Amino acid sequence: MSYVQPGEFDRDTNYIEDRITRDARDGWPVEAGRYRLVAARACPWANRTVIVRRLLGLEGAISLGLPGPTHDERSWTFDLDPGGVDPVLGISRLQEAYFARFRDYPRGITVPAVVDVPTGRVVTNDYPQITLDFSTEWGAFHRAGAPDLYPDALRAEIDEVNDGVFRDVNNGVYRAGFAGSQEAYERAYERLFSRLDSLSTRLSSQRYLVGDTITEADVRLFTTLARFDAVYHGHFKCNRSKLSEMPVLWAYARDLFQTPGFGDTIDFGQIKDHYYKVHRDINPTGVVPLGPDPRGWLTPHHREELGGRPFGDGTPPPPPPADERVPPLAAA
Amino acid sequence: MSYVQPGEFDRDTNYIEDRITRDARDGWPVEAGRYRLVAARACPWANRTVIVRRLLGLEGAISLGLPGPTHDERSWTFDLDPGGVDPVLGISRLQEAYFARFRDYPRGITVPAVVDVPTGRVVTNDYPQITLDFSTEWGAFHRAGAPDLYPDALRAEIDEVNDGVFRDVNNGVYRAGFAGSQEAYERAYERLFSRLDSLSTRLSSQRYLVGDTITEADVRLFTTLARFDAVYHGHFKCNRSKLSEMPVLWAYARDLFQTPGFGDTIDFGQIKDHYYKVHRDINPTGVVPLGPDPRGWLTPHHREELGGRPFGDGTPPPPPPADERVPPLAAA
Repeated sequence: MSYVQPGEFDRDTNYIEDRITRDARDGWPVEAGRYRLVAARACPWANRTVIVRRLLGLEGAISLGLPGPTHDERSWTFDLDPGGVDPVLGISRLQEAYFARFRDYPRGITVPAVVDVPTGRVVTNDYPQITLDFSTEWGAFHRAGAPDLYPDALRAEIDEVNDGVFRDVNNGVYRAGFAGSQEAYERAYERLFSRLDSLSTRLSSQRYLVGDTITEADVRLFTTLARFDAVYHGHFKCNRSKLSEMPVLWAYARDLFQTPGFGDTIDFGQIKDHYYKVHRDINPTGVVPLGPDPRGWLTPHHREELGGRPFGDGTPPPPPPADERVPPLAAA
Repeated sequence: MSYVQPGEFDRDTNYIEDRITRDARDGWPVEAGRYRLVAARACPWANRTVIVRRLLGLEGAISLGLPGPTHDERSWTFDLDPGGVDPVLGISRLQEAYFARFRDYPRGITVPAVVDVPTGRVVTNDYPQITLDFSTEWGAFHRAGAPDLYPDALRAEIDEVNDGVFRDVNNGVYRAGFAGSQEAYERAYERLFSRLDSLSTRLSSQRYLVGDTITEADVRLFTTLARFDAVYHGHFKCNRSKLSEMPVLWAYARDLFQTPGFGDTIDFGQIKDHYYKVHRDINPTGVVPLGPDPRGWLTPHHREELGGRPFGDGTPPPPPPADERVPPLAAA
């Protein structure tokens, strides 16, 4: 992150950067059944990994641990699991896997985290790299018909789009919501909506952000858009308009939501619980809003008219395993 | 207010109930130039009195003092006036007029308040009665063409509508926003939107709430609707939908907004500043959202198609005096 002005939210971008690769250069070889992805439904950064795992069909190779939506200052907890213990890792707090790796790990205990099951140690929490490695290193375990989410020929363009989306949108909503001054908030707001306007223009004539198929770029924009009206609009004061009032982006987001692998990873109840209950500094009462009605996500989007081939030469993923299903959308 | 359950917001409904009447039964005779209405632009309860004064053309008979949008725990202040002093009352804090009446006045220092200029004492802050008395007691000073906002034949119906609107809408948004528990919030939310749904049904086939002209009932609903998307939707978590997503109510509210005497009393900047800066208990940072774009208020509403005679046999008021104009609507 660049120079941070007074009152600005500064995301800690130092992560455990080990990679799991075919050549095991960091000591972590690609190996089915060895690693567990820990990824709360609530978290947009974790959501990326859950979507990519679904799209590529890595469920059988990499298991999924799901902490609940709320947590205290130090750690996500497995409070949704029987006895409050992750059934594979045998821990109740994610920090145990961090401390197993680094005894006095001083940074945030974040999701997504990939944990080495035999040792119980976190391998990496470097979320921008995790999804890219799912695409490029785990090819041997992709399902038949898996899409290429990070095609060689489009990487430069995807990286460039991702960069602007990260700064102004993915992280931009946090900069608005956690701004410590009116000025910092207004800068974040202007950058956010200016970027959304330009993405809207881009998406008015093409179905996906880069090329004519779903890529990593769409995954990264989607996870913020999915949370926009439920959380960022009110809680983070990103309220020039709701997503549902931005016709192109709203249709684009619904198109993805209705694509297998996207909407079936979204749990609006957990998302709202997380933000409104955890951030007592900006929502002291902890009251969680009942609105908005999420069923609009299922309305027709007509984006097929723009052409595009969602999965390229591949196919959509089958429904999620029974133990990874999210609740159906319910009225607000 | 009826029995209050734990966690529920309880509005203090005890006010100074003196009335200014033709027969001076409480010692306060109707008299042009004697009283000053103190009414902050920000406050929905005060807004009623400003609208009714405009519609009836009482500007020449009752002067208007305008405290700024923010205040400390005890009192509204005249911080918008030169030197921070009301030019007629000569005071900087409204509480001085309350203390001049009751030395240790223990309740909230609220607007609207009507102050007796010669003595500097508050006569009344009983807002539901103030507007009715403007209609029924101040007839001698109404402008030519003033509408009848509280017609004899419709009073029972107006009172009944007002009662439900007060409980579930005017005060309902506060009950949602200041709820101390999830349960209290959810009760307020359900009652609010259930009432808005029934008002929407009522207004789908008639232009105004009662009869075919603007009445007191419309004034009271309008002041809450005017603040809905700017404040209540996000700040008070009244977010099943925005007003702009409820087609009948949104058209109804725009119709009134565009009627002389309504929109020309609305200052969205002051409204947002008030709620977001004063309520640090629910908005600790004091950051004021930039959105939403208020210019939608000026779009066509097509409510004329329902018929109705806005001012009955009367006429719209002329533009406000130069020193009572609000800023034009600006982009968010």
